[in-house]
Parts: sequence; structure tokens; C-alpha cells
Amino acid sequence: MKKETLYVKIAKVMEEQIESETLKLGDKLPSIRTIQKLYNVSINTVKQAYLALESKSLIEPRAKSGYFVSKAGRRKFSLPSVAKMKTTTQEKEPEDLISKVFNTLNDQTITQFSLGVTANSMLPIAKLNKGMINAIRRLDNGGTGYEPVQGSVNLRRTLAKWSFVLEGKLGEDDLVTTSGAMNAIFNCLMAVTKPGDTVAIESPVYFGIQQIVKTLGLKAIEIPTHPITGVDLEAIKKVLPRLNACCFISNFSNPLGCLMPDEHKKELVRMLTEYDIPLIEDDLYGNLFFGTERPKPCKYYDEAGIVMWCGSVSKTLAPGYRVGWVAPGKYKEKIIRQKLVQTISTPSLYQEVIADFMENGRYDLHLRTLRSKLYSNCLKYQGAIEAYFPEHTKISQPQGGFMLWLELDKKVDTAELFDQAIKQKISFAPGRMFTQYNQYNNCMRLNFALEWNDKLENDIKRLGRLVKANL
Amino acid sequence: MKKETLYVKIAKVMEEQIESETLKLGDKLPSIRTIQKLYNVSINTVKQAYLALESKSLIEPRAKSGYFVSKAGRRKFSLPSVAKMKTTTQEKEPEDLISKVFNTLNDQTITQFSLGVTANSMLPIAKLNKGMINAIRRLDNGGTGYEPVQGSVNLRRTLAKWSFVLEGKLGEDDLVTTSGAMNAIFNCLMAVTKPGDTVAIESPVYFGIQQIVKTLGLKAIEIPTHPITGVDLEAIKKVLPRLNACCFISNFSNPLGCLMPDEHKKELVRMLTEYDIPLIEDDLYGNLFFGTERPKPCKYYDEAGIVMWCGSVSKTLAPGYRVGWVAPGKYKEKIIRQKLVQTISTPSLYQEVIADFMENGRYDLHLRTLRSKLYSNCLKYQGAIEAYFPEHTKISQPQGGFMLWLELDKKVDTAELFDQAIKQKISFAPGRMFTQYNQYNNCMRLNFALEWNDKLENDIKRLGRLVKANL
Repeated sequence: MKKETLYVKIAKVMEEQIESETLKLGDKLPSIRTIQKLYNVSINTVKQAYLALESKSLIEPRAKSGYFVSKAGRRKFSLPSVAKMKTTTQEKEPEDLISKVFNTLNDQTITQFSLGVTANSMLPIAKLNKGMINAIRRLDNGGTGYEPVQGSVNLRRTLAKWSFVLEGKLGEDDLVTTSGAMNAIFNCLMAVTKPGDTVAIESPVYFGIQQIVKTLGLKAIEIPTHPITGVDLEAIKKVLPRLNACCFISNFSNPLGCLMPDEHKKELVRMLTEYDIPLIEDDLYGNLFFGTERPKPCKYYDEAGIVMWCGSVSKTLAPGYRVGWVAPGKYKEKIIRQKLVQTISTPSLYQEVIADFMENGRYDLHLRTLRSKLYSNCLKYQGAIEAYFPEHTKISQPQGGFMLWLELDKKVDTAELFDQAIKQKISFAPGRMFTQYNQYNNCMRLNFALEWNDKLENDIKRLGRLVKANL
Repeated sequence: MKKETLYVKIAKVMEEQIESETLKLGDKLPSIRTIQKLYNVSINTVKQAYLALESKSLIEPRAKSGYFVSKAGRRKFSLPSVAKMKTTTQEKEPEDLISKVFNTLNDQTITQFSLGVTANSMLPIAKLNKGMINAIRRLDNGGTGYEPVQGSVNLRRTLAKWSFVLEGKLGEDDLVTTSGAMNAIFNCLMAVTKPGDTVAIESPVYFGIQQIVKTLGLKAIEIPTHPITGVDLEAIKKVLPRLNACCFISNFSNPLGCLMPDEHKKELVRMLTEYDIPLIEDDLYGNLFFGTERPKPCKYYDEAGIVMWCGSVSKTLAPGYRVGWVAPGKYKEKIIRQKLVQTISTPSLYQEVIADFMENGRYDLHLRTLRSKLYSNCLKYQGAIEAYFPEHTKISQPQGGFMLWLELDKKVDTAELFDQAIKQKISFAPGRMFTQYNQYNNCMRLNFALEWNDKLENDIKRLGRLVKANL
């Protein structure tokens, strides 16, 4: 009885700390060992206290990172709505809007909620620089010569070795390196489609994918996408015979942050295999999971070689290195040919630096810290939005990555809001950027891979105030 | 009178040295000052002697490099023939042949006459490595971040500054950086054509250009190309209304080494401007001239912005860096959009290294040495081929770059010869690689940017013997 009282007591203290915001949303809780020493109790007592808090959804465990103050149990805002399938031809490309948002990117005085880039403070820049100097010394002729078209053997081998999630199904020869994931997707679509072909994409969809599709003269079918479970399989089924390819971000899609459940992935691959339709799977956020383990890619379920699995380190290490890759399945020769024709080869140095960083465990360590920061930020953003944005704001519940999707009142036009926000030195991505149709005009995407501080919180507050003024 | 006797005497001595091959084909002559001291005569006397030798075509002056033993006056082999214009559709892509040749590239034991790559010994690798380490320290965050889509400001500024040949017509904002010249051409063709369009290319044509054209679903018209003056303007005129773009290497084309005369360039630009047809000008060999000055690009004559001037450092500094650029004229926005969609940006580091290398005069110095080596090699190769290849071999007379084009007896099939040569550890590029038609089967391209030594000479001898055996 005494034991039970103890853990209840501890749990109560912490619950009060959470209620009074001494422990704020997204904060990491003290480690079990710290609490044990503090209260002079057994490890088990602390564990029981944490379990009690977890069962009330007040805290959440994070693999290898400890416990965090959570809010799952007292979610105030509901999820964004799912778009209806549209069959009309595209209405208007959001190019001008995209250009406008991109033009603000180099202004350092603007808070860049719009970017899909991790804050420098979250990246191991000094370590990478050191790795670069080592690689220059190690490389034959300092990497001045052409590399084999398929890419650095070293990087491919390391990638294969570290792709635990594929359970050994991937060898170095199954990979081709690219200039980032965007380039991988471009190559894949070049390889498996011809102008006039039809490609299924998400909705809302990452505008980069939308732009590649347009540039290649392809037709896009936007598949309704659920903020938690991703693309709607029933919707895909309906258009299946018309498709020449699919291009999805299966894990923590940008902008919704949704995660396709394993059964969906399996069923999707089965359906596409039946029709021999290639799936370009952009898995660049897969390592930024908030759950207990890295989610499987669709590639895991691919027996026929139809899945072209794309990845990169642009979101986790160094966007400017332009290091990406693709495991193109049965389309490998086509991809190699594409790469040869487009650019002959990719620079060796960056690939070597990344291979080295992965090889000796530094990447794994870095990812653990990064995930924990992102998750904590995600909760803090959600908390701030709930506090400062109007009632009835809808907000996504990302399970990884670093994008939040907000759906505001129908009266708010986020393209107009953008112009107002820029004057206040705040940039975000208006919803209209993420579709070829006239929709999502009241939505916005926020990047939460920015360093959390008072200024950032205040920027969210000011943004919320702007939204309210637009009602 | 005494003076005249003196210079005639000196000229005679040197002529004898050339005849007896004490001074060999391609050798650099002693400097005027050296001869002056040796014979204790005036500078003018030596100059007169050299002029006399030059008038007999025994020696040739090279800008800023001195005089070289020449052979223009006693050329033994004639020029390769010019192909007739074909109007049939393409017969067969030489893809398998290209793959076969490429597959031999990583074998270090093979003499790579087939490659379009400068020997490492001719490149300033140590200096570039040093520049790289400096650049890492200088760059913001070690270049981990995205660079502006248009490319490094530093590199663009330096390129503009060093483009003396354009006489100040080029500003930093007129340039976009790319992953090498191949990538620049790919982007240009993506930007200004759509599948089914028609593009004029040279014949024989660099197979990389041919492959881009095919990959993009374009039709190629091969324009007859003269080994000295380049593409036949009359032939272009005939097909002009059918063209959507032209893609030519105006200076020292690969594989012929020809140089379009200025009047041709001017007329070509005029013709294309009239029809508003974009000219993609690949000028990656322009700095490797054997004459007295860097030839002008077509871009120089471009008032309407139809010329997309492409360049790179792949032939002169570091192929593996993948640093190239394009001055796309009025198509700039399209090119930037293409680059954004294909790969977002290019890595900063290599661009900074190249900018720095150009900026403080090291590039210029390096080019002077490289040109002199290449020219000397060109003469030595020609001499060896005249010595060891069958009579009636036809051989190009490149005015820059580092490619030789040979036309052998009709009985020789260089695709078959390639298989035989590979067994003897010699690789070259069979003529069939440079056309979409069933022609050039008795031609071959040899790279002369290899370090000249006894082994190399012997390899040419063995290759000549193989050719003879095939007669």
C-alpha cells in the first residue's frame, strides 16, 4: 500500500506541474533515474508514476528519448478535412504564389515558417565540415575525376547496410545516387512516363512534386489524403486503370505529416503490382518518426520491383550537399541512363562525407536528438496555435517530419494573409501552393524545425492575431 | 648582309635539327632569348630566323607559349570526308556500342583513347584540394544549406568578369550554374523544346548530345559538318523552317575539332534570330585553342537573346566537380525553373573552389600550360598516326580541344576493331557512336589529352598494326 501511495503521490505532483505549466507542452520530463534520486524511491515506483501519467495521456514515451509532456488526451482543435476527389482538369497552377513565397527565402530577417528546411542549429555542421576535410584527403585525386554513373560505392554500401527497415532486402547494387530526393523523383518520372501520361499524387501535395509533374507534361490526379492515414486507397482503386505511375510520400507526407498504415502500404503495392504501375515512393522523412520505430516503406512489400524508393539527407543533415538516392527496382537501368544523360555523374565528396557519417554511428545518434527536438517542437507549436489562433482552427497531428497543416475559417484567404504576414516579417506556405485546383485557400503549412524560443512563440502569436483580424 | 646570313644560318641549323628529328614534331623550340645567348646575336636576328622557319611551315607560334615544331606544311594524310545530309528517320541508336565502350572506363590497365577526359597529370589537383579546404572554412555553415537556385553569386561574378571574349556583354545575373555542361544542355533542351520537336545537331556529333535528344523524345537532324569550318550553313538553311532548336559545339567540336569561322557564327545567329530558333551553344572547349586567341562564341553575335551559351570546367580542371553554367539569354527564367524542379540547387563548395581558382589568375596560368601540352600532343599523335597507320588514313586537323577523328579504309569496321583492341588493352571511340545513322563505321575518335610517353606511342603503333590487319 505504501508503494502505491508513493507512485500516486509522484504522479500527482507531476500532473500539477503540467497543469500549472511548470512542465510545459513538449517539455522533456526528468529521467526516471533523476526522479528516483529526487524522491528516494525505487525505479519501479517512478515507472509506475509515469505509466499513470501516460494512461491519462498527459505524457508520452519516445523511443530512446524518455517521456514528454503530451496533449493527445486533451486535443482542443480537430483534424483538417479531407478534400473531395476532383475530376475536372486543372484550374490554375499556383506558380506565381510559389515564386512569391520562394522570393522571401533569402531574407534573414523573416521568420521562415514557409521553408521545408531544418534550422542550422539542429544540424551537425561542424562534424560534417570535419568529415569533408577528411574525405578530401582520402579521395583519389580529391574527387576531381568522374565517379561511376551509379554513384559512390561507399555510400551505396552504407545505405544498404543501414536500411534495417528493409530487413536486408537491399544491396549496394540496388541503389543509384542522385542530387537529392527531388532529383531522384525527377529521374524516376522521366524514366517511367512520357508526356500526356497520368500520375496519381497526394492532395494536398508537396508543390515540388506537382511542379515536376507539370514540367514533364504529365496529368496529375490528386488523391484525397487523410491527415492521419494518408492517401485514400478506394480513390486510387477507382482511377487505377488510367494511371501510368504513382508518386507518394508514404511516411510523414509533406504537408500533412500523415503516415500510411502498414496494411495500406501492403494493399497499395498489391494493387499497383497487379496493374504493373510503378510507385515512386519519396521516403525522405522516414527517419524523423515520433513513434517507437522507423515506419516501413512501401518498398518493404515490393516483390515485383515496381517501387522506386527515394531518399535523401536534405531534411536531416545538409540540404546543400544535394545527396539523395533511389532504389529503383526493375527500372534501375532506365534510371542509370537518365542520370548519365542528365549530368553524367554526381560529385563524390559529399557522398563520401555522408557515407562516413552514417558508417560510424554518428548519424544514428544525431537522428535521435533531432527527432526528440522536432517532436518537442511539434507539441509546442500545437500548444501555441491552440492558444493564439481562433476557435475552430483545424490542425494536423503529424506523426513525424516537421510540417504542420492548418485549416482556417473559410473566410480567411491565406494567399492574402501571406502578403500581410510578410510585412510583419513572417513567412508561411499558403495552402493554394499544394494543389492544382482552386482549393485549400484557407489552409497553411508551417515548418516546425525552427529553434523554439520566445521570439518564435511570439511570431506564432502575431500570426494568430493576423488570422483573427481576417475573420 | 652579315645580318641576313646570320639568321639564315640559324634557320638552317634548326631546319636540320627538325629534319633529323633532334627537334621532334610538337617539341617546343628554345626561347628566342636562349637562342640569342647561344649564338650571341640580336633578338631581331633570332626572330627573323623563326619567321623564316614559320614561312616554311616548319614551326608554328603559339600565343604566350613560344614556337613549336609543326607539320602543317608537310601534311601527309588528308582530311576526313564530310557526310551527306540524310533525311530518312534514324536507323539505329548506337546505345549498345556506347554502353560497351563506357563499360571499359574503370579498367585502369586499358589505355583510354576513348574517354573525353583530360589526364590527371595535366590537372592542378593539389591546388584544387587546397582550394577546397579553404572554401569549407570560408563558406557559411560549410555549404550545408541550400544555395540560391541561380547558383553561386561568387562563381557567376567571376565567370562574367573573366569572359573577356564577350567584351563585357555578360553580367553575373545573366548566368545560371549547372551540374556540368551536359546538365546545362539537358536543361536548355528541356526548357525550349517539347517531345516531337526537331533539333539540328552536328554530324558526327558528340554522343552525349545525341542521347539527350533521344531521351527527350526529340527528332535530330544531323547537319553535315566540315572538319575545319564546322556545320554547313547551307544545309541548315534548307531545314530552318522545320527546326525548333539547334545544338552545336561551335569551338573545337567533339569529335571533329573544327572551329566555325567568325563569319559563319555571325550568319548562323542572324538566320536563327530571323526564325526565333534558340541555339544551344556548347562552348566547353573554347579555352583550349591552339591559335593565337580564344575564339569568340556565337553568343558574341547574339543581340536577340536566342543563344544559350553553355560552358564548364570538366575538360580543363575537374570533371568530377560537375561545375558548369549557361548564359541562357531570353530563356533565363525557364532555365531557373528547370533547375529548381530537377534538383533545387547545386552544391556550393565546388563552385566556390572554381570561382577562387579563376579569380586570382591561377586558371589562366593553368590553361596556358594545358594548351601548350595539348597542342604538342596533337602534333605527336598526328606524327605517330602518319607513321604507323595505313596509307590513305584520313585524319582531322583540330584547332583546339583534344579529340582526333580518323577515317579509315571502308573495309575497316571500327566496332569490330574495338573488340580486338580491347583485348590488347586499348580503348577508342568507334565512329558509329557519333551518329544515329548507319555511317562512320570506318571512323574512330582518339583522345589526345593523355600523357605522351613511349608506352602511349607504342599503343598507337599497335592500334595502327591492328587497323592494317583488318584491311
